[in-house]
Amino acid sequence: MLGAIQDPDLGRDVVSLGMIKDLVIGADGRVAFTFELTTPACPVRDRFQTMAHKLVADLPGVTAVDLKMTANVRSAFNRPQPNQVIPGVRQAIAVASGKGGVGKSTVAINLACALSLSGARVGLLDADIYGPSIPGMLGIQNEPKVIDGKLIPLEAFGLKLMSIGFLAGADKAMVWRGPMVSRAIEQMLTDVRWGELDYLVIDLPPGTGDASLTLAQAVALTGVAIVCTPQTAALNIAVKALQMFRGLNVSPLGLIENMSSFVCGR
Amino acid sequence: MLGAIQDPDLGRDVVSLGMIKDLVIGADGRVAFTFELTTPACPVRDRFQTMAHKLVADLPGVTAVDLKMTANVRSAFNRPQPNQVIPGVRQAIAVASGKGGVGKSTVAINLACALSLSGARVGLLDADIYGPSIPGMLGIQNEPKVIDGKLIPLEAFGLKLMSIGFLAGADKAMVWRGPMVSRAIEQMLTDVRWGELDYLVIDLPPGTGDASLTLAQAVALTGVAIVCTPQTAALNIAVKALQMFRGLNVSPLGLIENMSSFVCGR
Repeated sequence: MLGAIQDPDLGRDVVSLGMIKDLVIGADGRVAFTFELTTPACPVRDRFQTMAHKLVADLPGVTAVDLKMTANVRSAFNRPQPNQVIPGVRQAIAVASGKGGVGKSTVAINLACALSLSGARVGLLDADIYGPSIPGMLGIQNEPKVIDGKLIPLEAFGLKLMSIGFLAGADKAMVWRGPMVSRAIEQMLTDVRWGELDYLVIDLPPGTGDASLTLAQAVALTGVAIVCTPQTAALNIAVKALQMFRGLNVSPLGLIENMSSFVCGR
Repeated sequence: MLGAIQDPDLGRDVVSLGMIKDLVIGADGRVAFTFELTTPACPVRDRFQTMAHKLVADLPGVTAVDLKMTANVRSAFNRPQPNQVIPGVRQAIAVASGKGGVGKSTVAINLACALSLSGARVGLLDADIYGPSIPGMLGIQNEPKVIDGKLIPLEAFGLKLMSIGFLAGADKAMVWRGPMVSRAIEQMLTDVRWGELDYLVIDLPPGTGDASLTLAQAVALTGVAIVCTPQTAALNIAVKALQMFRGLNVSPLGLIENMSSFVCGR
């Protein structure tokens, strides 16, 4: 009866897609199974979970349902994302904010690590040319090797990493006008041997200018995660970034409100 | 004997420049006077104060010295700053940071208000095209009038104000590449009737790109105040901004460490 659940993307029911696994039916009417999605970021994950739970629970004789939701990003059903600029990359996810200093790089690092821990092959591209934070935050200062004219990304914490900070030195100011910034970002996409990646997380600089425009136009982005803080000033500018990405046909994956839980004591 | 103090900029001693005022010599040997500088930001202020105090205190019969340091920015001795782009503006001060979210706009507003309270005529230009914060922080949303093809700056809190946020609406994202940003900043300098100003405080966007470059090349900046926070990530990028301004021959006026005093409780 779980065959009633159709995957809207793959156009088939979830049973014939092999997404229902480890089914155990206990003598006491207790039913346990695993629902394996193709991505932990599945947009219909919650709906699938509710539907599957209800369908099984409503069966006569079922006393309890033990449903585990997982994801296998290497599933054969994951459609290869056609990406002309970075061919081995299935999903390119931008992390943007509009306003600076809201924790964009911290969120990008944590997102990349979380995806990596879920079993995916993950790259992290620091696209903030003027203020690259990734090298310092991860404590990495090596210079990437060049093989056959292609830069080899550094590897740490299970991630493949690239940042202008690795190339130019952490202390050097990039006093560049827009076209130079665009060129640098294009190079970090195309002249880097990213290899096969399930996710490339891209940490964007603040603003709605050259870096974001170039990225959205050069790469088929899966979507963008917007980071902001609770202050009106940050929220107003986050909305502008959202507007820009909508205008560029990049779907917002969600808005992350950072630094929202701590209340200062007196 | 205060004539021994020479003003290095004006090339004359401070007595003949009329900077020593309100001299009162009491019968008990108590001497009071006022030392009036041409700007509260005088780089030799502390040295002048120490010298003046010592010179008078060392005189025979003087029992106490009551020295008051003030500034008169409208003083006839203030050299008119030759500024081809914005002729009525004597001193143009940039507030920059490299990194976003360190409180640059807050510092710029406070600096402008402090200068205004000291008696100066002050303008505040929000040069952050992608994320203008000044309108929201000051709670102003009016649209500037245009007279004879020139924009008239808004006035509030004793300041003359201009921001892309007044012109385009607070909610509209400026999805512009570098050359458009440069043009907008040039327009806000030259197509705005700033009038006679002792100080124009310019709130720059984060980064070492088009906005900062255009500003430093278009206007004879008096100097730049760098804002940063105690975190290594912010300091590293502030140093890059400093490098850029040094490269553009703009003197750093100082580095303001913001958000440095509060220690979170547990």
